[in-house]
Amino acid sequence: MNEQKPPDRPGLDSLMAPNAVAIVGASADPARIGGRPVDYYRRAGFKGALYPVNPNRDEIQGYPAYPSVADLPGPIDCALLAVPAPRLPDALDAVAAQGARGAVVFTAGFAEMGEEGATMQRELAARARAAGVRLLGPNCLGMFHAAIGHCPTFTSALQNGMPLPGRVGLVTQSGAYGTHLLELTRARRIGVNYWVSTGNEADVGVAEVIDYLVADPGTDVIGVYLEGVNHPELLFAALERARQARKPVALMKVGTSAAGAAAAASHTASLAAADDVFDAALREFGVARCRTTDELLDVIYAASRAPLPRGRKLGILTISGGAGVILADSAAHHGLQTPAMPEAAQQVLLARNPMASFTNPLDVTANAVNDFSLVRDGLESMVRDGGYDMLASFFTSWPASKVLGPQLRTELQAARPSFAHCPHALVITAGAEICAQYEEDGLLVFEDPDRAVAAMAALAGLADAFARPARDALPPPAAALPRIPAHAVGEAEAKRILAAAGVPVLPEALVQDAAAAVAAATEMGFPVVMKLVSPDIAHKTEIGGVLLNLTDAEAVRVGHAQLIQAARRHAPGARLDGILVAPMAGDGQELILGVRVDPVVGPVAMVGVGGIHAEVMGDVALHRAPVSLDEAEAMILRLKTAPLLTGARGRAPADVQAAAQALSALSVLGATRAGALDSIEINPLLVRAKGAVALDALIVPAASGR
Amino acid sequence: MNEQKPPDRPGLDSLMAPNAVAIVGASADPARIGGRPVDYYRRAGFKGALYPVNPNRDEIQGYPAYPSVADLPGPIDCALLAVPAPRLPDALDAVAAQGARGAVVFTAGFAEMGEEGATMQRELAARARAAGVRLLGPNCLGMFHAAIGHCPTFTSALQNGMPLPGRVGLVTQSGAYGTHLLELTRARRIGVNYWVSTGNEADVGVAEVIDYLVADPGTDVIGVYLEGVNHPELLFAALERARQARKPVALMKVGTSAAGAAAAASHTASLAAADDVFDAALREFGVARCRTTDELLDVIYAASRAPLPRGRKLGILTISGGAGVILADSAAHHGLQTPAMPEAAQQVLLARNPMASFTNPLDVTANAVNDFSLVRDGLESMVRDGGYDMLASFFTSWPASKVLGPQLRTELQAARPSFAHCPHALVITAGAEICAQYEEDGLLVFEDPDRAVAAMAALAGLADAFARPARDALPPPAAALPRIPAHAVGEAEAKRILAAAGVPVLPEALVQDAAAAVAAATEMGFPVVMKLVSPDIAHKTEIGGVLLNLTDAEAVRVGHAQLIQAARRHAPGARLDGILVAPMAGDGQELILGVRVDPVVGPVAMVGVGGIHAEVMGDVALHRAPVSLDEAEAMILRLKTAPLLTGARGRAPADVQAAAQALSALSVLGATRAGALDSIEINPLLVRAKGAVALDALIVPAASGR
Repeated sequence: MNEQKPPDRPGLDSLMAPNAVAIVGASADPARIGGRPVDYYRRAGFKGALYPVNPNRDEIQGYPAYPSVADLPGPIDCALLAVPAPRLPDALDAVAAQGARGAVVFTAGFAEMGEEGATMQRELAARARAAGVRLLGPNCLGMFHAAIGHCPTFTSALQNGMPLPGRVGLVTQSGAYGTHLLELTRARRIGVNYWVSTGNEADVGVAEVIDYLVADPGTDVIGVYLEGVNHPELLFAALERARQARKPVALMKVGTSAAGAAAAASHTASLAAADDVFDAALREFGVARCRTTDELLDVIYAASRAPLPRGRKLGILTISGGAGVILADSAAHHGLQTPAMPEAAQQVLLARNPMASFTNPLDVTANAVNDFSLVRDGLESMVRDGGYDMLASFFTSWPASKVLGPQLRTELQAARPSFAHCPHALVITAGAEICAQYEEDGLLVFEDPDRAVAAMAALAGLADAFARPARDALPPPAAALPRIPAHAVGEAEAKRILAAAGVPVLPEALVQDAAAAVAAATEMGFPVVMKLVSPDIAHKTEIGGVLLNLTDAEAVRVGHAQLIQAARRHAPGARLDGILVAPMAGDGQELILGVRVDPVVGPVAMVGVGGIHAEVMGDVALHRAPVSLDEAEAMILRLKTAPLLTGARGRAPADVQAAAQALSALSVLGATRAGALDSIEINPLLVRAKGAVALDALIVPAASGR
Repeated sequence: MNEQKPPDRPGLDSLMAPNAVAIVGASADPARIGGRPVDYYRRAGFKGALYPVNPNRDEIQGYPAYPSVADLPGPIDCALLAVPAPRLPDALDAVAAQGARGAVVFTAGFAEMGEEGATMQRELAARARAAGVRLLGPNCLGMFHAAIGHCPTFTSALQNGMPLPGRVGLVTQSGAYGTHLLELTRARRIGVNYWVSTGNEADVGVAEVIDYLVADPGTDVIGVYLEGVNHPELLFAALERARQARKPVALMKVGTSAAGAAAAASHTASLAAADDVFDAALREFGVARCRTTDELLDVIYAASRAPLPRGRKLGILTISGGAGVILADSAAHHGLQTPAMPEAAQQVLLARNPMASFTNPLDVTANAVNDFSLVRDGLESMVRDGGYDMLASFFTSWPASKVLGPQLRTELQAARPSFAHCPHALVITAGAEICAQYEEDGLLVFEDPDRAVAAMAALAGLADAFARPARDALPPPAAALPRIPAHAVGEAEAKRILAAAGVPVLPEALVQDAAAAVAAATEMGFPVVMKLVSPDIAHKTEIGGVLLNLTDAEAVRVGHAQLIQAARRHAPGARLDGILVAPMAGDGQELILGVRVDPVVGPVAMVGVGGIHAEVMGDVALHRAPVSLDEAEAMILRLKTAPLLTGARGRAPADVQAAAQALSALSVLGATRAGALDSIEINPLLVRAKGAVALDALIVPAASGR
């Protein structure tokens, strides 16, 4: 577990970019765990000093070896400790004494093995901290920094040589899956400079490695493989710094199907499975979240080779009508636009080939072989006249043809400078060598047209996120926010708290007998509603605990008796605070608003359209609380059911601004009182043509009074 | 356009598997369109007689050439006509005279170029039919049948040699995209025996080729690339025959984003975009519909190499916890189950390696290198004790390791016979040669774990579909079905028609004045509802044309005046049939039921939950009409909103059977009267705890009285 970082703690420079490295427990056998890293350093041509430490040998794999760390001829920055667990503490002290400020520990048998191992791990981390050494691991596969040949790792992925040179950094919690990813980058010609397996994260975690890569001038793109989030606040801060530095982060987080382990009392609990919450947080930072391995590699590939597009308009050029339609289908699927070329520009091209079509897709047909300049001129016209932000072209196996390939490449090379700011993906089949040539020309290469479009859509998403200004802190609420009681809170008290926090509610009265009910209703004006108020009854409607549209005093009197009877029948043990009387709220669209303290992400605001949409259809928008008015409005408009508020099927548009104001106010309350809170739910918030009011609400305090 | 098939029309044997072939317009230059096929025949080792026809040469690419078709030394079965359009008719007659019953025409410039070309194409097709010749094309890239070396094609995909031997047949409407697919099959080691590009389909269409491949003993799996459906009834019949023959069909249909071109008068028109309708039809036949090229190739790959699973339970074995979680996530995503191993079986394995985990995923950890038999025993136990229907294993780069690879392969080979009926996918990285070895052992090989799981889920879907019995014809309706009038039909008449077709409706009266309304309401019993009835007013509620819960005579009198006024104000020109009076329907869940005559697929039944779910959320189930009671019930239960009917959130369960009965009856009416119909919509059907009634309905007759 990553403890609080003391102020004088060193950064990761010694670990990630050392000048001198000791390998404690170095072996002469490159197949052994202490031998493989030596082999890798040798093959990678590490320019710094490498000191194998082994009491039984003078020389290891061509390097002079030393009997102990104390015998090293000079200071070191980093050490690889390839020794059994019991010898780690002494080894750590020894390398620290020799100047090391970074250490890599492969050794397993720590927190992953249970409580005893976790204790050992905490002791190891404390020792490293005391010695001023940053620790990678334990139970990791190490790392490499390819540009300098620094390879304290035994990942099998380097057995076939170092990766292609490049500007990608990969951070992985799983050494084995990180190795798998690394193997796959090779075939996709992704150049990886850093690969860091964080293992048990006793000290250095994923977040800090991301931070290092954000600051690193040799890194353009960061790929992350996550299994769990130990320190969400550090991770989110690092991701926000990446966004502000305009460094794309592509992230794969597994365990999505095990979401929602903790049951919560609130009836919106099921709306916000933990993975959805995490996903919403990632969206804030513009992280390209990838569900699959192919997606992760495709986004890393595209982001490391292409500029980010300026918008979402895709221009398509094809030699086959079918492929053009596939690309257009994919654009629609992935949220890109494919507007038509301007008529005049079409005519200019049509004059050169009347059999072709220059709408968008531009189908130059296989006849393009007779005049390859049409490819160049078409592409240039698309960007110049059509204003497309990115391009996709289908040439199938032409690049592999000895006759067609060179002509095609010449035209594409000639065209490229005039739209170097546009990502341009080719959909082709060709050998790796030919694909690499096109990549050198600044083009992306795919076999599956859908993957080409998906990757470019991801680039557009990154560009959108990078363009957003940093989130300002919300202004403090005008009045002091109410506190959340430690006990379960019923409707009436919940609404008083919400009203104090700036969420509009209807006037209402909590009454104890029928006469008081009639008096209150008469004062408010008929028609009124009446409801049971009890901290023990969550789902009132289902037991007949809500009566609507009571139009006169007699109806109120009869209704009062009905409600008391309903409570006695269906919830005989329930405490009864009284009966709530309130005016009929009128017409409008109902929303469900909530704020909930997620154990990982913290307070999260949510909104969904009332009725069953949120629950049965899962149509809910989430955002970390607090949310600004603009963010709240964006959440509401992101709902699939938003047309219900904006005027679908002749409905009157509802006051989305007022709903957003209520959501923002609720989120501020939730975020401010997160320590005392499990969840608050407003169900429903009635959004009228003008204004919005909370008609019912439930506040669940934190179980343990956090 | 594929005309009606006359009874004496020959099948495709001569075209697909000829003994003697003429190439009319053969060229000595393998780069030319008439030369490339000769080159392919030669390199593929065609065993039959190949006769190049060329008046200027005695020999072409090593074959004796003939000056004309009449000069050929023997009869032919098939001819490739590589001649310009004006010479096609004579060439067709000549090859027919020489015995050809199949001909391939590459030539372009027919229906794809407009009306003049379409006329030429019809003439060509008529001539072929008259001559008893089956025509592939025009405007196609031809075809090949690899096993016999029959290659009347100029697809560039054969320039690197014939595909791997195998039992896959590919049918494609696009020659260019079909070529792209064919290129990609090579890298994925998919063995393709037939490849047929149908081009303009003047005669032979995709459906007939599928039929041929279904009957062909050399074909196990059929891949289809579609751009349009010329003859849906032929296609559906072929797909149903494939299902009954248990031959997997994987199909990619493009143009999905251009759906819904034709606007329809009914207000459910937008519910059933044409692509959804087509998709629903494909589901009936168990076609694996693939959105992307990778999906298509993955399903073809898996179906051609693995048995179909007996169920949906996936067992996972991994050397990395992370990869196990990824595979489990993917299983959930793709609808597979991953139940745990039986406790006793876990204990047996744990006794051998207490550090591993044998729940499911079985994580044997990297320590499996110390005892590879654990891999074998784990896999065997999963199938024997865990009862899993399919297996996925993660070994990353182990197969590529000279040390680990052979040991792993030995264990997998030893294990395989004991569960040869289970598909087993390996997630590994290794060179093509090593992957091919594992494939020879009966295993599937993937790099991306999600694609491995997705492909096996597709196999499970095929197995489900193959297990279904053939659809019986529905029994004829008990009474004669009512006819659909040629004019627009208002609510009252629509409900009379539906009632006659077996859809329950409420008693009701159409009245012309207030006194009659009061009389009718009094007879039915209060409370009642009243509605405007007009063929010109589709959305009554929105203009105040519906009044609910009228509790006495006075309310009915006032309401009548209100309705008349609403009609005058909002729809002044509308014809008014009168005012409908009916009893209040009571509580229940509202459904929307529809039947609609799709221009491609024909009559289609649809159902969605009322309110906005169907419209805004697109939660609609579709099935070709008519549907049986069981099918109707399955449609309703397939809705995401089905929990509203089956008892969500304490709701009383609604009478799904009654709703299914109404849907089935509606579908029978729609299918029987399809020629006279555009659409019928019941909105809503109120589904009560017992029974269901249509509360409103709209019938739109066919525009042109089909």
